[in-house]
Amino acid sequence: MNLPGKKRRRRRRLAPHAPGVAAGTLVVPADARPTRLRVIAYGPERLEERELSDPQELRAMRGQWPVLWVDVDGLGDVAALEALGAIFGLHRLALEDVLNLHQRPKAERYPEHLFLVARMPALGEAAGGSGALETEQLSLFIGKDFLLSCQERPGGDCFDPVRTRLRAGKGRSRAAGPDYLAYALLDGVVDAFYPVLETCGDHLDTLEDELFARADPGIARRVHQVRRDLLSVRRAVWPLREELSTLVRDPDPLVADETRVYLRDCYDHVVQMIDLLETYRDLGAGLTEIHLSLLSHRMNEIMKVLTMIATIFIPLTFVVGVYGMNFDPDAGPLNMPELRWPWGYPAVMLFMAAVAGGMLVYFKRRGWIWSGERIEPPPPPK
Amino acid sequence: MNLPGKKRRRRRRLAPHAPGVAAGTLVVPADARPTRLRVIAYGPERLEERELSDPQELRAMRGQWPVLWVDVDGLGDVAALEALGAIFGLHRLALEDVLNLHQRPKAERYPEHLFLVARMPALGEAAGGSGALETEQLSLFIGKDFLLSCQERPGGDCFDPVRTRLRAGKGRSRAAGPDYLAYALLDGVVDAFYPVLETCGDHLDTLEDELFARADPGIARRVHQVRRDLLSVRRAVWPLREELSTLVRDPDPLVADETRVYLRDCYDHVVQMIDLLETYRDLGAGLTEIHLSLLSHRMNEIMKVLTMIATIFIPLTFVVGVYGMNFDPDAGPLNMPELRWPWGYPAVMLFMAAVAGGMLVYFKRRGWIWSGERIEPPPPPK
Amino acid sequence: MNLPGKKRRRRRRLAPHAPGVAAGTLVVPADARPTRLRVIAYGPERLEERELSDPQELRAMRGQWPVLWVDVDGLGDVAALEALGAIFGLHRLALEDVLNLHQRPKAERYPEHLFLVARMPALGEAAGGSGALETEQLSLFIGKDFLLSCQERPGGDCFDPVRTRLRAGKGRSRAAGPDYLAYALLDGVVDAFYPVLETCGDHLDTLEDELFARADPGIARRVHQVRRDLLSVRRAVWPLREELSTLVRDPDPLVADETRVYLRDCYDHVVQMIDLLETYRDLGAGLTEIHLSLLSHRMNEIMKVLTMIATIFIPLTFVVGVYGMNFDPDAGPLNMPELRWPWGYPAVMLFMAAVAGGMLVYFKRRGWIWSGERIEPPPPPK
Amino acid sequence: MNLPGKKRRRRRRLAPHAPGVAAGTLVVPADARPTRLRVIAYGPERLEERELSDPQELRAMRGQWPVLWVDVDGLGDVAALEALGAIFGLHRLALEDVLNLHQRPKAERYPEHLFLVARMPALGEAAGGSGALETEQLSLFIGKDFLLSCQERPGGDCFDPVRTRLRAGKGRSRAAGPDYLAYALLDGVVDAFYPVLETCGDHLDTLEDELFARADPGIARRVHQVRRDLLSVRRAVWPLREELSTLVRDPDPLVADETRVYLRDCYDHVVQMIDLLETYRDLGAGLTEIHLSLLSHRMNEIMKVLTMIATIFIPLTFVVGVYGMNFDPDAGPLNMPELRWPWGYPAVMLFMAAVAGGMLVYFKRRGWIWSGERIEPPPPPK
Amino acid sequence: MNLPGKKRRRRRRLAPHAPGVAAGTLVVPADARPTRLRVIAYGPERLEERELSDPQELRAMRGQWPVLWVDVDGLGDVAALEALGAIFGLHRLALEDVLNLHQRPKAERYPEHLFLVARMPALGEAAGGSGALETEQLSLFIGKDFLLSCQERPGGDCFDPVRTRLRAGKGRSRAAGPDYLAYALLDGVVDAFYPVLETCGDHLDTLEDELFARADPGIARRVHQVRRDLLSVRRAVWPLREELSTLVRDPDPLVADETRVYLRDCYDHVVQMIDLLETYRDLGAGLTEIHLSLLSHRMNEIMKVLTMIATIFIPLTFVVGVYGMNFDPDAGPLNMPELRWPWGYPAVMLFMAAVAGGMLVYFKRRGWIWSGERIEPPPPPK
Repeated sequence: MNLPGKKRRRRRRLAPHAPGVAAGTLVVPADARPTRLRVIAYGPERLEERELSDPQELRAMRGQWPVLWVDVDGLGDVAALEALGAIFGLHRLALEDVLNLHQRPKAERYPEHLFLVARMPALGEAAGGSGALETEQLSLFIGKDFLLSCQERPGGDCFDPVRTRLRAGKGRSRAAGPDYLAYALLDGVVDAFYPVLETCGDHLDTLEDELFARADPGIARRVHQVRRDLLSVRRAVWPLREELSTLVRDPDPLVADETRVYLRDCYDHVVQMIDLLETYRDLGAGLTEIHLSLLSHRMNEIMKVLTMIATIFIPLTFVVGVYGMNFDPDAGPLNMPELRWPWGYPAVMLFMAAVAGGMLVYFKRRGWIWSGERIEPPPPPK
Repeated sequence: MNLPGKKRRRRRRLAPHAPGVAAGTLVVPADARPTRLRVIAYGPERLEERELSDPQELRAMRGQWPVLWVDVDGLGDVAALEALGAIFGLHRLALEDVLNLHQRPKAERYPEHLFLVARMPALGEAAGGSGALETEQLSLFIGKDFLLSCQERPGGDCFDPVRTRLRAGKGRSRAAGPDYLAYALLDGVVDAFYPVLETCGDHLDTLEDELFARADPGIARRVHQVRRDLLSVRRAVWPLREELSTLVRDPDPLVADETRVYLRDCYDHVVQMIDLLETYRDLGAGLTEIHLSLLSHRMNEIMKVLTMIATIFIPLTFVVGVYGMNFDPDAGPLNMPELRWPWGYPAVMLFMAAVAGGMLVYFKRRGWIWSGERIEPPPPPK
Repeated sequence: MNLPGKKRRRRRRLAPHAPGVAAGTLVVPADARPTRLRVIAYGPERLEERELSDPQELRAMRGQWPVLWVDVDGLGDVAALEALGAIFGLHRLALEDVLNLHQRPKAERYPEHLFLVARMPALGEAAGGSGALETEQLSLFIGKDFLLSCQERPGGDCFDPVRTRLRAGKGRSRAAGPDYLAYALLDGVVDAFYPVLETCGDHLDTLEDELFARADPGIARRVHQVRRDLLSVRRAVWPLREELSTLVRDPDPLVADETRVYLRDCYDHVVQMIDLLETYRDLGAGLTEIHLSLLSHRMNEIMKVLTMIATIFIPLTFVVGVYGMNFDPDAGPLNMPELRWPWGYPAVMLFMAAVAGGMLVYFKRRGWIWSGERIEPPPPPK
Repeated sequence: MNLPGKKRRRRRRLAPHAPGVAAGTLVVPADARPTRLRVIAYGPERLEERELSDPQELRAMRGQWPVLWVDVDGLGDVAALEALGAIFGLHRLALEDVLNLHQRPKAERYPEHLFLVARMPALGEAAGGSGALETEQLSLFIGKDFLLSCQERPGGDCFDPVRTRLRAGKGRSRAAGPDYLAYALLDGVVDAFYPVLETCGDHLDTLEDELFARADPGIARRVHQVRRDLLSVRRAVWPLREELSTLVRDPDPLVADETRVYLRDCYDHVVQMIDLLETYRDLGAGLTEIHLSLLSHRMNEIMKVLTMIATIFIPLTFVVGVYGMNFDPDAGPLNMPELRWPWGYPAVMLFMAAVAGGMLVYFKRRGWIWSGERIEPPPPPK
Repeated sequence: MNLPGKKRRRRRRLAPHAPGVAAGTLVVPADARPTRLRVIAYGPERLEERELSDPQELRAMRGQWPVLWVDVDGLGDVAALEALGAIFGLHRLALEDVLNLHQRPKAERYPEHLFLVARMPALGEAAGGSGALETEQLSLFIGKDFLLSCQERPGGDCFDPVRTRLRAGKGRSRAAGPDYLAYALLDGVVDAFYPVLETCGDHLDTLEDELFARADPGIARRVHQVRRDLLSVRRAVWPLREELSTLVRDPDPLVADETRVYLRDCYDHVVQMIDLLETYRDLGAGLTEIHLSLLSHRMNEIMKVLTMIATIFIPLTFVVGVYGMNFDPDAGPLNMPELRWPWGYPAVMLFMAAVAGGMLVYFKRRGWIWSGERIEPPPPPK
């Protein structure tokens, strides 16, 4: 059972520091991909979008645009990160956290910027082939005139709707500041978990149907996998709730009051998702329990068949065995005189039919066969 | 296993926004029904009730009546909602939430109005045929002189008692403002869950009786369905508690103090319902456990029968098999001389009767048969 | 399985209002019993006790006595309740709650009086025959000079010790006000649950002993019933804790400071009872688990017996079957020459004894028989 | 199953008042032992220790000594308690609580004294023979110049180290006041639970080893008993935590600040003990689960043996049965010509060997026998 | 089953005081190792590192160096501890806690110093051979110019990276005070738990794969051991969270504000680890459940095989038994005339083939064999 995607995921170091490395030194994560830098600079009037080869190009752009959105895709290039840190005045500990995958979603205030961590479903290239849900770390730095987003894995993300809206310039999106953009990205992250949950719900539904249709050890495994995925979603979504609640509750000069209203809406979505998540977790636990009781029930059915067959035929086989004994009727008058009785064979057959009939009556009484007695369910409420 | 009602329910989009759609744009839910607008305008003296074809008719009515109750039944007509939003000054995010089914019950204050979301048991046309409990979203906008109620599914609702009381003009109902009307609707929602809980309780009672009467895998499924329905009620009722608690606790100019006393009463009912709900959930979990132990017990009974039959007859069958062997007694004096002994047959029969009797004594000792020894239960308390 | 007492209990309406009835209208509960009014009027010096036929007689008594205790037994007479409400100035919502059975214990302050709801074990006539624990609703109105107690079911209650003490005039009872009387009644309610808990504890003890003595599906049912009763006690006692805590903590002009000390004592008893209750619930859950593992163990024992018998005799039966075949030794030298070998029969018997002995050795090795090896338990602490 | 010790324990009344007895009257508990009064009077310089026959002797001693420690061992003598109450000005409700066994540990402030209740493992004469852990109630009254300790059961207690230290006059013990003495006693109580927990831990360890060594229903019972003992310790220790926390947190003139530091240390020990307790409870629950899965596993092993034997030999027995039929080969050419074929017997034997071999291959494939395939565990972390 | 390492661990006294020993007296723990004293004295400019034979040498060093880090490895030498206490002014109760192994991690403020307790994975010599995770107690005293660290077990610790950084003099490490050093040590402790958790996660992964591959009672045991290790980690890490939260939240003159930022980072790591821990605990519990259902499933498979074989062959064996009876066809026309019918043998064989075929059709219908019907899983989300 070789599950390469899974093994690779495991082997990624969990500890926030490489062993023996001083806190404060930036270290490339084990299987980091090459970094790609994209910038979208925009204001109410105009928008420019391009790929950067050198982070230093940003120095010239700063101040020219109301909002600079720098999207760092892939964490392989520590030098670029260091440069960005210098350009935007990012705090060292926050930069370290960007590189420490497995961060828990959180919101931290630093003098120069807000620092947010979230986890989103991994949709890009590195999503592996193991089938298990993987999440990818998203780090956001929100400043007065910039938003820096760092994605763990290059390739697909869930921000295309945001980009499309920016390009179209519709709604609040272009007029508002980096705080609204951060809201839009977080909202995109939350929305990206909904199809994951829907799939989990569909799987649970299908598994429930299959469960009652047939016994299959694969079902236990699949229920386990859904529950495992739900645990992953949970680890990503629960702390997001706290994070959003902090943003909504505590005033911060970098977050406008209007944006706070939108963040409250996003917070409501997260709470609703957690509700659903816990319901699915309960359903999943229920399926495991039902699986066990159905297996027991099937065993009972199997054992009933065996027991009925054995209980009817084993005594009969004994009886025919008795008359298969080779005692010599010539040796004495008590030695199997039945064998020579003209009615012996029909009498034995009738006796055995009576035994079998008695057994069937006994099984009927125990309700093993033809058990039609049912207690009527109560009538539905009017 | 084709469960169309269930599948249809699932396919409804869980995410609050359609993918790729900007927040702030109203989108018709997937399977929305045509909208029907009904208005009940009333004051202490008079009451007018009619169906609207155009929301603009409301502009003329506003200001003429102390209270306008606009009931939007079915969410298919976004234009009508937009018009209502413009007439009553409803907040955009709240309007979006009306269309985002699967909202969690909540209470939100906006500058111009209160916005409440609740879930009520679906009684109308769309209740499906799957048998599972479905809930329907109810959104309430409470303003100074209006109450707007939006129901997800047209057809039956649980507000007829409220309408009857309004028409009759009895009690506080006509004299009080939209806040009291909102209380009356929420109270109707809470009351509508009681028969659902009663049915769950009756099902659990019946299932408990059936459980001890016979083994049926259908019981596991039905217990699971009741527990699933209880989970649905829970998701609707738990947040309602918070919602009512907010309304009772935090003063708001739109909610009169007298209404607050009634809301506290409604809150008490919700708490009482939650108590009952948790008790039923405990009972349901207990039934699943008992089912498992009863299945085990039945298996034991079945196995005892099989084992007794097999243990008595297998050795006997061996014995008769021995005397069915064809060794030639003529070949030597040790070759089955019993076969020619005049008492051979009776002796073997007696020997086998002794073996069978010994087995029965053994079973009696182990308590498998005739086990009448009982420990008396303690006497009841005086 | 016709359990009339249980069914009757279920059918009582759970919803606080009859459907279609305005809040504010008093409705007789479904199976209410005729009302009986008893009054005990007392002061430090004297005491008068009589049965009332008309509530209006109380108007004359009010003001004449320091304390009027009006005991309403049975809720069938709404007119009497309305009259009492008018005489003592009781709040409408509180009166409604008296008639809405299934209330959760609570304490509410109204301008004119305190309103308490509690649940006590049903000891009177309606206690049914189903054996399950039923609780009865007790509502108390505490005013400056009166205490009104409303009992759901006429007949036995747990207040006779209080009446006896009042008549005897001993201790604080006659000198103190209605608040001390309310404490005495609540204390009586709490004391009435102790024998219920003791019975549950005794049942659990007996069931534990029975469990290890024999396998009986009735044990699962009885454990379930005890756990069900514990759930009922829990629903009655948990909110009582909150209620008493409110009374002890929040100052109220109707509750004297000395009474508060006694209420704190009563609160301690409730907390102690909840402790015991939770311990019993844990024990009950443990018994269900143990039942399951004992059933499994017994199954193992049964299967071992079957397997040993079958494993020893099925091969032997095969061997004797071989020598029961009718191949003709005359047809060729390879056709069962053993049958004519003089030592054939003894040789086969010895071979079979060897096979059986080998099997026994194998079973011994697996520890199925004569498994006397025990690991010693650690010595007790010194 | 006659467990006198256990029954006796049960029969002790749980309710705080005897039925029909006014609160405020002291009642001797059901199986109270004769009271023994011991006093240790001490100051920094000297110490006197003696047994009292009459509590009134204390009147003379009061004021002569900085600290009077009166130890009441056994609660049979209510008159002595009343006298002590009069001498030291003890509150009536507190005195009642001393006699109401089954009190929950608590700390209460009365005008004249602090009143503490704790539970300690019963080490003395009444510890019964049931083997189950029993706890004994300890009540402490702390005044300015006295400490009154009341023990439920005479005989062994856990205060000998305290007495020894007092007599030796070492450390703070003689110089400090009754508050420090109370700390020393509570610390002794906490220390007395450690060996109990250690025994529980050792039992769980042993049971885990036994569990994997052999299947024994006694193990289920013993795990249950350990879990039951842990529940008892829990009921004694959890409220002790609250009690100590109250003493540490809330300033009180009767507790010196230096003593508070020691109480904080004692509080830490209780928290640490609760930690351990919960860990053991988790381990106990885990053992019950494992027991179940081991029983299932053993059942599988047993069933495999049975199935293999039956599956190999039942078809073979059928085959030999076929050739044991007595159809007359002379009646026609199709009537069992094999019987007279010279190679008939060897052919049948070879056919049966092939069938048995095929079965073994099938079992090998299913992994029932010779299943050596193992997935290697991951290497240990470096 | 002799597990010496485990037994030795158990036997270590849990109680904080040796019985009969006054609080305040330092007692060597039962199996303490000889003490080794190492000091690293450093400032921004220089660093001196040496082993001490006499604690008094520290008196001379104090005041000469900005920071003195005294590392006490092994707790066998109480005199050295006493001396250190005198030199640095350590509080008596804190010193006692150093020697009381099994302390819960905590942070306590004393007038002269901060006192921290933590637990770290035991990596050194005493790690035992039992395979179970053991933790070792680390006590830290933080003063203005010193840090005293006491390790329970000599040998390996997790502080080598800290020492290396100090020697290299890089980053903040040499310039900052003892508070930063304490942070570095705590961070090392936290980091040391990551590989432990990773191993647990890997074990759970492997066990999940093995679980589905084969049934082995060893799996239950290994899942139990992983869960046991997770419990150990939990006991060490949960209180660490509180401890760090206290340090971060409450200002203290001994902890600089810059260090507080680093401690917050360390706190985040602990929270993240707890998240992971709880996820693993959930997975472990899930594996135990799945194990049980897989065992049931395998039992079903085994029983199906047995039942099919028995159900097909037992009736057939009965039939061949019938024709193996020795009734004499000469005795009468009804006595087994089939035996002499020319088509008797083929007719019986065909009849038996028909019976066997019918059985197979029946098994097919029940889905025991060739059950290929599968419900398709829902398509993955797009």
